[in-house]
Amino acid sequence: VALLVRVNGNSGTPLYEQIAGELKEKIDGGDIPEGYRLPASRKLAAQLGVNRSTVYKAYQELWAAGYIESTPGSYSFVRRRRLPAAPGSGAPSVSGINWQRRSSAAASGLQTGWEAEEERRRQLTALLPPDTEPIDFTPLAPDRRYFPAESFRKCLNTVLVNEGPELLAYGDPQGVPALREYIAERLRLHGIRVGPDEILITAGAQNGIELLFKCFAPPGSAVVVESPSYSRAVGLARLLGIELVPVSMTPAGMDLEELEGILSDHSPALVYTIPNFHNPTGITTSQEHREQLLQLCERAGVPLAEDGFEEEMKYYGTSVLPVKSMDRSGAVLYLGTFSKVLFPGLRIGWIAAHPEAVKQLTAVQKYSLLCGSSADQAALALFCRRGFYDAHLRRMHRIYRSRMQAALRALRSHLLSGPLHWSKPLGGYTLWLESADSTFPQEMEFLRRLAQRGVLVSPGGDHYIGSSDGTRFRLSIGEVEEEQIEEGIRRIGEAVREILQ
Amino acid sequence: VALLVRVNGNSGTPLYEQIAGELKEKIDGGDIPEGYRLPASRKLAAQLGVNRSTVYKAYQELWAAGYIESTPGSYSFVRRRRLPAAPGSGAPSVSGINWQRRSSAAASGLQTGWEAEEERRRQLTALLPPDTEPIDFTPLAPDRRYFPAESFRKCLNTVLVNEGPELLAYGDPQGVPALREYIAERLRLHGIRVGPDEILITAGAQNGIELLFKCFAPPGSAVVVESPSYSRAVGLARLLGIELVPVSMTPAGMDLEELEGILSDHSPALVYTIPNFHNPTGITTSQEHREQLLQLCERAGVPLAEDGFEEEMKYYGTSVLPVKSMDRSGAVLYLGTFSKVLFPGLRIGWIAAHPEAVKQLTAVQKYSLLCGSSADQAALALFCRRGFYDAHLRRMHRIYRSRMQAALRALRSHLLSGPLHWSKPLGGYTLWLESADSTFPQEMEFLRRLAQRGVLVSPGGDHYIGSSDGTRFRLSIGEVEEEQIEEGIRRIGEAVREILQ
Repeated sequence: VALLVRVNGNSGTPLYEQIAGELKEKIDGGDIPEGYRLPASRKLAAQLGVNRSTVYKAYQELWAAGYIESTPGSYSFVRRRRLPAAPGSGAPSVSGINWQRRSSAAASGLQTGWEAEEERRRQLTALLPPDTEPIDFTPLAPDRRYFPAESFRKCLNTVLVNEGPELLAYGDPQGVPALREYIAERLRLHGIRVGPDEILITAGAQNGIELLFKCFAPPGSAVVVESPSYSRAVGLARLLGIELVPVSMTPAGMDLEELEGILSDHSPALVYTIPNFHNPTGITTSQEHREQLLQLCERAGVPLAEDGFEEEMKYYGTSVLPVKSMDRSGAVLYLGTFSKVLFPGLRIGWIAAHPEAVKQLTAVQKYSLLCGSSADQAALALFCRRGFYDAHLRRMHRIYRSRMQAALRALRSHLLSGPLHWSKPLGGYTLWLESADSTFPQEMEFLRRLAQRGVLVSPGGDHYIGSSDGTRFRLSIGEVEEEQIEEGIRRIGEAVREILQ
Repeated sequence: VALLVRVNGNSGTPLYEQIAGELKEKIDGGDIPEGYRLPASRKLAAQLGVNRSTVYKAYQELWAAGYIESTPGSYSFVRRRRLPAAPGSGAPSVSGINWQRRSSAAASGLQTGWEAEEERRRQLTALLPPDTEPIDFTPLAPDRRYFPAESFRKCLNTVLVNEGPELLAYGDPQGVPALREYIAERLRLHGIRVGPDEILITAGAQNGIELLFKCFAPPGSAVVVESPSYSRAVGLARLLGIELVPVSMTPAGMDLEELEGILSDHSPALVYTIPNFHNPTGITTSQEHREQLLQLCERAGVPLAEDGFEEEMKYYGTSVLPVKSMDRSGAVLYLGTFSKVLFPGLRIGWIAAHPEAVKQLTAVQKYSLLCGSSADQAALALFCRRGFYDAHLRRMHRIYRSRMQAALRALRSHLLSGPLHWSKPLGGYTLWLESADSTFPQEMEFLRRLAQRGVLVSPGGDHYIGSSDGTRFRLSIGEVEEEQIEEGIRRIGEAVREILQ
């Protein structure tokens, strides 16, 4: 093979890059075969009339890019590659492994469930009237139009300017101390008294739930959950081989009599509860209910995992303090997050718990994520200290209080006489609509009629452990503006009346 | 209770903040009791001679900070809190729950192991000579002195300026497309041909390993691992209730005859291997070994998890392509990461696999982390596209090739005639020293003698599945500069000679 490389001293490109570029092209194009021995750098340099170090740099570049093999002081060879049967065709079309069968029953259950959800979403989307924005009550997330993204960017910039390399190295698995300190102070507002050492920063509340399961609920153990409950906690438990024991939700919260029986029959590893703006029903339990729940768990010696995912989105009426604030024996594992009030994509939450529990959980985190993003955590701590978080929260309360009022007003105007009943949440983003009337159509039928009117809502059935009857659905006002909320609910009323005729 | 609030129109603090601040102080101090009804905003405004909206804003502030309860149009009350028995004392000293017993055997095993490690570290640190920096061969991470933190900060800044709100919302669970595209292109250099849809971005390789386990190795199933192997993969498998089947490491890599027997006897869910710079032994397997390993897995229909955590840290000799590059049947689940070449704290890695497998894994991620940090991912994609990654990698290769040569030179000078043998790695950060001599002291004794000389190394025993005999340890040159490497190894030689005398 004749090695033809040409360099041009007058082009703007450095000589070594020209040489490397030409060689790459020839290797890619097959002009230089695999295993080909490149000329010694001295020889090629003489041939091209360039410095030896120029050729050396070109070879370095080829090496770094994976084109050649070399041993210092020896020749360089074009790398041998065993390429797939049909190079350039992407992945093989047929896998030797049956991935569907290879994945665990739980994992493929999640995937099947997800695909069914997507398929349902596609079907409903197809029914939407053309040329108009749908009114989408499905995303449970704060409205990104109000994200204080600029302030956060500046904080992130500041911390990276000040201590970039430290923040980009492996960090404290328990989380950046400055953020733990802020959270500890913040929790005092909710009656929770913990120090920074009693807090573990997690990658969002979901990661927190996972750590609790992995630490305290080994495969085969039982975890008590409300039914319905947060569907991703339920799916995750299944994935980890945990047995789920459902307790019915009453309008006052988890059925405590039922729980009492379960605690003595099943000796569960954990009880998981969402006391504020319960997902999906929107129920907030009373102080008394919380006290009783805690007492039952304390008496049974079973840890209580309290999911306070929207603790700071109380913007209405009498506010009730978290169960953790009443926790004298250290039985409550409290989960918090910034995802539902600030940036969902930031993935920062926390667990506040007894120091012994935090130690165990941190050990588990060392074998899970190793550590979180220290840069994000430090930036968030600065963001909070500068008052941006408080200011944002005030704004969110104003916006969502007003939206929720609009929603409740519209429900009274358009659905009062119908078969649907609804919760009156004290904060958060969700409303739960339920029909006690057995003649009222099944969920999917109703969802279709709503979609035809340009309205999307979440079906309620997904949130139950096991099957569930009736028509129930969840409305989230997270990303819907006031006027659209009113219009959307007006159309829901219209759909109900059409069905009843 | 007389409500005494004073405002000062000449202070720089806004009036509403003064009012809120005073009320907070009084509530915190107990001057205003729980349940106290605050005066109507109109009344307090008249009393203070301020606008009603000023008082309204102050009450809003108190509400947002959790001090008061209010219903629109009604009175505000100071929140009732049931505080812990000894307010201000932090956590209760005695927990009603026995957390040690409540945590799973695996979780408390990890914690106990971790504490033992920390205890050992403390003991060794206590032996270090005073007033001198120790030579620390334990951290397996790139040197933070060379982090291109400034370039990354600028990229992060750019993406947040351009699309902050979008990047801070919930993102694609599979990862930001721009980064998946970059990784797909990059993998071609290593002979791996996959498209962006065959890549799932993970929160580092550890999260990738966890997803593989959660998806394909349900609790109770068996996973084959090299012994010794990466200790955090091993610990994680235990946590998830997975049975570990060890295969011996030979100098050529995993013992393939042993593997063949295991594949037919155990029908494992996965085989996990680290073909480059194996952690902890530093061994890189040959092309032939890789082909045979793949064939064995293909024939048995068992997926092969290939951990390519330092794929791009090949800076020496003949480079061998990853097993994934030979994967015609789609049996290989390939793990990659940026943690060992760029920023460990960034927590970005990936899995490259058959599209069906990626679908399953993405479903599992939807129930684990939900999604990663889109901002970090988008910034990294920009960082790579701008050429910063390539430039950094060239620099890293130069630095570590030189460090590794220094280490090998020093080993030949100071340890050639002794009982310790070492690997000659083709890249990466680690060297593995091993004694075949049974009279050579046990690990801890040797570690102590090294610590007395100001040198810290990682004990090898931790990495084995089950117990292991002999003296083996791991030296990482990640954070040690050339001169220190030479000096450290000189002292190791000294310690060996002292023992042998």
